[in-house]
Amino acid sequence: MQNQERLDRMRRAMEAERLDALALRLPENVLLLSGFWPMIGASVLVFPREGRPVCAIPHCYEYEASLALWEAEAAYFRYGVLDAPEPGSAIRDILAAAARGKGWRRVGYEADFEVVAPSWNSGEAQVPAARTREIYRAAFERAELVDVSSLLQVQRRRKTAYEIAKIRIASEISTIGLEAFERLAIAGRSGVELAAEVEREIMARGTGHLGAFRVRAYAQVATGPDETAVGYRPNEVSTLRRLERGDVALLELGVVADGYWADRTRVRVAGEPTEDQSKVFDTVRRAQAAAAAAIRPGVSGAEVDEAARSIIRDAGYGAYFPHITGHGVGFGYHESMPKLAPGETGALEEGMVTSVEPGVYFKPCGGFRIEDDVLVTASGSETFGPFRNSLT
Amino acid sequence: MQNQERLDRMRRAMEAERLDALALRLPENVLLLSGFWPMIGASVLVFPREGRPVCAIPHCYEYEASLALWEAEAAYFRYGVLDAPEPGSAIRDILAAAARGKGWRRVGYEADFEVVAPSWNSGEAQVPAARTREIYRAAFERAELVDVSSLLQVQRRRKTAYEIAKIRIASEISTIGLEAFERLAIAGRSGVELAAEVEREIMARGTGHLGAFRVRAYAQVATGPDETAVGYRPNEVSTLRRLERGDVALLELGVVADGYWADRTRVRVAGEPTEDQSKVFDTVRRAQAAAAAAIRPGVSGAEVDEAARSIIRDAGYGAYFPHITGHGVGFGYHESMPKLAPGETGALEEGMVTSVEPGVYFKPCGGFRIEDDVLVTASGSETFGPFRNSLT
Repeated sequence: MQNQERLDRMRRAMEAERLDALALRLPENVLLLSGFWPMIGASVLVFPREGRPVCAIPHCYEYEASLALWEAEAAYFRYGVLDAPEPGSAIRDILAAAARGKGWRRVGYEADFEVVAPSWNSGEAQVPAARTREIYRAAFERAELVDVSSLLQVQRRRKTAYEIAKIRIASEISTIGLEAFERLAIAGRSGVELAAEVEREIMARGTGHLGAFRVRAYAQVATGPDETAVGYRPNEVSTLRRLERGDVALLELGVVADGYWADRTRVRVAGEPTEDQSKVFDTVRRAQAAAAAAIRPGVSGAEVDEAARSIIRDAGYGAYFPHITGHGVGFGYHESMPKLAPGETGALEEGMVTSVEPGVYFKPCGGFRIEDDVLVTASGSETFGPFRNSLT
Repeated sequence: MQNQERLDRMRRAMEAERLDALALRLPENVLLLSGFWPMIGASVLVFPREGRPVCAIPHCYEYEASLALWEAEAAYFRYGVLDAPEPGSAIRDILAAAARGKGWRRVGYEADFEVVAPSWNSGEAQVPAARTREIYRAAFERAELVDVSSLLQVQRRRKTAYEIAKIRIASEISTIGLEAFERLAIAGRSGVELAAEVEREIMARGTGHLGAFRVRAYAQVATGPDETAVGYRPNEVSTLRRLERGDVALLELGVVADGYWADRTRVRVAGEPTEDQSKVFDTVRRAQAAAAAAIRPGVSGAEVDEAARSIIRDAGYGAYFPHITGHGVGFGYHESMPKLAPGETGALEEGMVTSVEPGVYFKPCGGFRIEDDVLVTASGSETFGPFRNSLT
């Protein structure tokens, strides 16, 4: 099944911008328009407004690409072996052949990305930099190169039915990790052990689940007041510190299933929570539920944020919720649109997917955050991969 | 302890290139010259030829940075919270303040990197793209911006004593995964399970080992002739396929410990190997030992490659060893220098670290590769993280 709605939408956007073709190398964008999530970041997709796309792919990943590609023609080049040409020249030749005789005047490419979702091989990102631009320059010799980073972000903000189904799967798989965390977050365990176990369970049990072919998790578990209430940080750091009775454990979890992402957070207390901890947890849970309930097309990011923030403020914890309520998610762990934050006047639209993640952080109570990914539906919202929230 | 030799060497290289300062954002290069391996890729290091470096760092990672930084002054900016400035403007202001009154004429930056070692948060790379260049342009208004990607690669090829100690630790930690693989690669296990378990053991048992603070592994396990002898691919793909008796299992393993890398490969047969399998394994093992024994300063990459290749050729498997014998490793999973390959006439130098990884791949025998990381010493070589090679 191909994601026709995405291809149609992108071609309309290209028409509006008078773009004849796109040349894309970031794995997330190759996936977006070809269906193939590159094993390593060496694949380049040429996506013309008219005609069949061509995807330059290392020959050693022919099997995986052939299973995944929609309409794009695969152009395999020998890679990583002694008789392979220099990859840049192989890609240049494929791109030039795709462009030959087409008279393209404007070709879009990725110049301003900064934040990158990795390929399957997350230990080594490959990204388009100066050399890739030279390759495009040589391959599309008569065309103007146009940075489409922003266009791609805007187009990506509303997910198609195909993409929604894929992102939902990533969230469903993430619940394997939430369940493991719930089961294992007991006194005596270290943050490192918990994070490693959550990652293992998601990879081992999530692969193959709901048809997912490649699954990987990035878990961080902070424990105790000093680590969890450091203020707030986008990514926790798991350490050897062992959970003590009464400590908070906070799991920050990114999960990728075939290139589509989920972003979840859960918090537990080892043993008996204090009255303060229970009250904070209950407040955060109510704030999250209120934000999710406020989500529907036409509502602004600020309104959803305020739905959560007002509950936290009313409970007396306003000063301890220092971050935004949510961000786009799906083609990456974090996307720039939408944004649930004070001052965000833009309206939510059907098909957007956003994290909803209020949090309260202070000592000695600890840091408490709950995060789920929520789809904006025609009439309201759907929380992906539903999973309980319980402190103990 | 600071890596003074690295700082001195880099300043000499900057003098030769008439560079007044460097502005570096790739996590691997921030680590190289500051001692701090960024938690996320939002830190930028200004490294002047004369005077004290300044590192712009998100405030929420102050604790980790303060433990790690050598001579650089930390300039923390609020990040990820509601009252934070736009990160670009915060970084620009810090850079501009560092440059003020210095009269810098040439500032080096990273334009042509393509292959990137991730930050600790490998689920989301942050890299310098068009926007970062604009920030540099604004901060260093009177200076010429010079791409130093190649200079950095060249400087990085020879590791200092400090760096060698760190890379050795990553290799030592990788043996935890090699041991787990050896123990678990039995009939009935899937590639995904083996990879997940190897990663978990390295993270859970490797963190804290030999003083490593943050440890992560990227494991891939291919099983059976179709997956292991697909030809050759730089990164395997773990699947749900279960090892059958007589099957090969091949582990490709990247390990990062505080920003320094190891790259290892081991191969096992579940049950009793065939005569062919034993012969191939023995050939690859002898080839690897011969290449390691050939390594010393002054020898060319081609000579080391030939030491391995000739043994494989003489055994009749020459056509089944399609890739190079080794590549640089240490600041990333793969580095461009040195290269052990036919035609590589450049001499090895003391302080280089290279993988040594001959392999033979054909069906129905399967794919066999053995890989260790080897240091070029004054008089010969040292294999890091020694660990046995046994097929069963």
